[in-house]
Amino acid sequence: MNRQITLASRPIGYPKESDFRLVETPIPTPETGQVQLKTLYLSVDPYMRGRINAAKSYAATVEIGEVMIGGVIAQVIESKHSDFQVGDIVNAHIGWQEYGVSNGDGLRKMDAAIAPISTGAGILGMPGLTAYFGLLEVGKLQDGETVFVSGAAGAVGSVVGQIAKIKGCRVVGTAGTDEKIAYIVDELGFDAAFNYKNVTDYQAKLEGLFPDGIDVYFDNVGGRITDGVFPNLRVKGRAVICGQISQYNLEKPEMGPRFLWNMITKRARIEGFLVSDFAGQHAEALVQMAEWVRQGKLKYRETIAEGGIEKAPAAFISMLKGGNIGKQLVKIADIAELR
Amino acid sequence: MNRQITLASRPIGYPKESDFRLVETPIPTPETGQVQLKTLYLSVDPYMRGRINAAKSYAATVEIGEVMIGGVIAQVIESKHSDFQVGDIVNAHIGWQEYGVSNGDGLRKMDAAIAPISTGAGILGMPGLTAYFGLLEVGKLQDGETVFVSGAAGAVGSVVGQIAKIKGCRVVGTAGTDEKIAYIVDELGFDAAFNYKNVTDYQAKLEGLFPDGIDVYFDNVGGRITDGVFPNLRVKGRAVICGQISQYNLEKPEMGPRFLWNMITKRARIEGFLVSDFAGQHAEALVQMAEWVRQGKLKYRETIAEGGIEKAPAAFISMLKGGNIGKQLVKIADIAELR
Repeated sequence: MNRQITLASRPIGYPKESDFRLVETPIPTPETGQVQLKTLYLSVDPYMRGRINAAKSYAATVEIGEVMIGGVIAQVIESKHSDFQVGDIVNAHIGWQEYGVSNGDGLRKMDAAIAPISTGAGILGMPGLTAYFGLLEVGKLQDGETVFVSGAAGAVGSVVGQIAKIKGCRVVGTAGTDEKIAYIVDELGFDAAFNYKNVTDYQAKLEGLFPDGIDVYFDNVGGRITDGVFPNLRVKGRAVICGQISQYNLEKPEMGPRFLWNMITKRARIEGFLVSDFAGQHAEALVQMAEWVRQGKLKYRETIAEGGIEKAPAAFISMLKGGNIGKQLVKIADIAELR
Repeated sequence: MNRQITLASRPIGYPKESDFRLVETPIPTPETGQVQLKTLYLSVDPYMRGRINAAKSYAATVEIGEVMIGGVIAQVIESKHSDFQVGDIVNAHIGWQEYGVSNGDGLRKMDAAIAPISTGAGILGMPGLTAYFGLLEVGKLQDGETVFVSGAAGAVGSVVGQIAKIKGCRVVGTAGTDEKIAYIVDELGFDAAFNYKNVTDYQAKLEGLFPDGIDVYFDNVGGRITDGVFPNLRVKGRAVICGQISQYNLEKPEMGPRFLWNMITKRARIEGFLVSDFAGQHAEALVQMAEWVRQGKLKYRETIAEGGIEKAPAAFISMLKGGNIGKQLVKIADIAELR
């Protein structure tokens, strides 16, 4: 049987495990032009929270009773598609289930010789590309600028800070545990970091850390941390809005101080983006990212939930609450020797 | 004697006339390389509110006892500068006073044959250029897009809407009196407009006016009107932050709903600017603007306070409260026949 996680009810506030349901269905079989996939790792990501609201979000909402959307690392176990062979490891978008089929659209082959295949959902996948394009294309980061990253120990933020260091920038991050702070400074090479749970006046804290102001703010979090950034932006500063995880699980919209006045005096820019906006450049960027990983310039950690697909809801909820360092994955199965 | 208006005290909330003081000083005389100027029209503009706060703003703050900053239309009454002749009409930045001297830096000669000289502080001056660069360079307006303008009957907003019409766009404006609404629709050719004082749910109002969303929002006002825009931005929409007049006179910062989440789903951009950022392109833009004025494609109104320099504080306060249609000026003196 194929085990799937479906959406049982729309969460109010933080999702609960009971908002999801484990369902058993027959394993789907491939038709001509399709491959049959077996999930090895399932990716849980902040953006998924928006997809399970009734409100319109990035893209199609998951309906009640539907399989949760999401990326996976999977192995081709049967192929009726000329581009894929049995045994291939691919990044696919079949959602939270143990097996799926695909016509090949959006499948990306992974090369285990470059890095562990799990990185295909992390530093060499969507989160890594999000960091790359957000910082360099949206943020237009210039060598030697100052960078502040919220959610700095997560799958995206940890890469943002390291790319900024590669570009010769001064980088400060914030995250929610002392372990994360030690990780990003001691292992990833951020110039400084602080645990946002120990700070009340973010504006003053950032003024101390950036006496000449912030050139690029890479925002994964939103809320009060972000409020503290705008008065500290430099002239021509940029705030790249990648995520707003502090806001996703609120039962009603939060109020905050108005700040647009700062945008005029600073001639500053705020811009949101989706990694899919840069789809045509993903392949090229992955070559660069893989090179940096190989050179040891980009390091990564993964937080991998064991125990199979039934652990996906708990892993998702844990990630939303900051339980992960680096990319949060759920281990579903081992690679099989199929060729 | 030279009569000047100086800053007597820093306003709390809306400025009061008693925050300013009329001072008499000797008329300054020009040295070699200088011209002596007599003010004809004095410009009062929203940005000046920021300059009389103690807090850091765009540029240097006016200190207590100093002459209020600002642009004027003036006539050269004595010249020791080879580029200027007695009788020349110029746009200058000598502040709120009847006479001043200048070494020529930043002086711009006006040609009364093109349009009345008062336009040099309005549609063919800083406000007109602000509209031009904000809409076309910051907003990157494309033909056929949808545009929403707040403060649409003001010196900047009224020009924004007309340039958008020249570019084949659908334009909706908002302003605070029914007379202003009639003016921008009937005289300036906006496609629609509403009196924001008669609306409580701006988000719903804008949803009705822009069923397919807003491509470019040109914001002179901020606050609750602006809150209603973000959920109505189209994908790749742009909010150009030119002014936040609703916020300038608050005694403490106002709270509003957080909206950055919208920036992600819409891949949208917010950007602030100052017209001085485009100083190198002003001359070229003024040629285009003058051409549009001559062709009748750009219309304008002026609200001119009579009664001399002592009326400047009241005119400034009235403008901050929306008392003007089009550019607010203060008439100081008539042109003299000097050559």
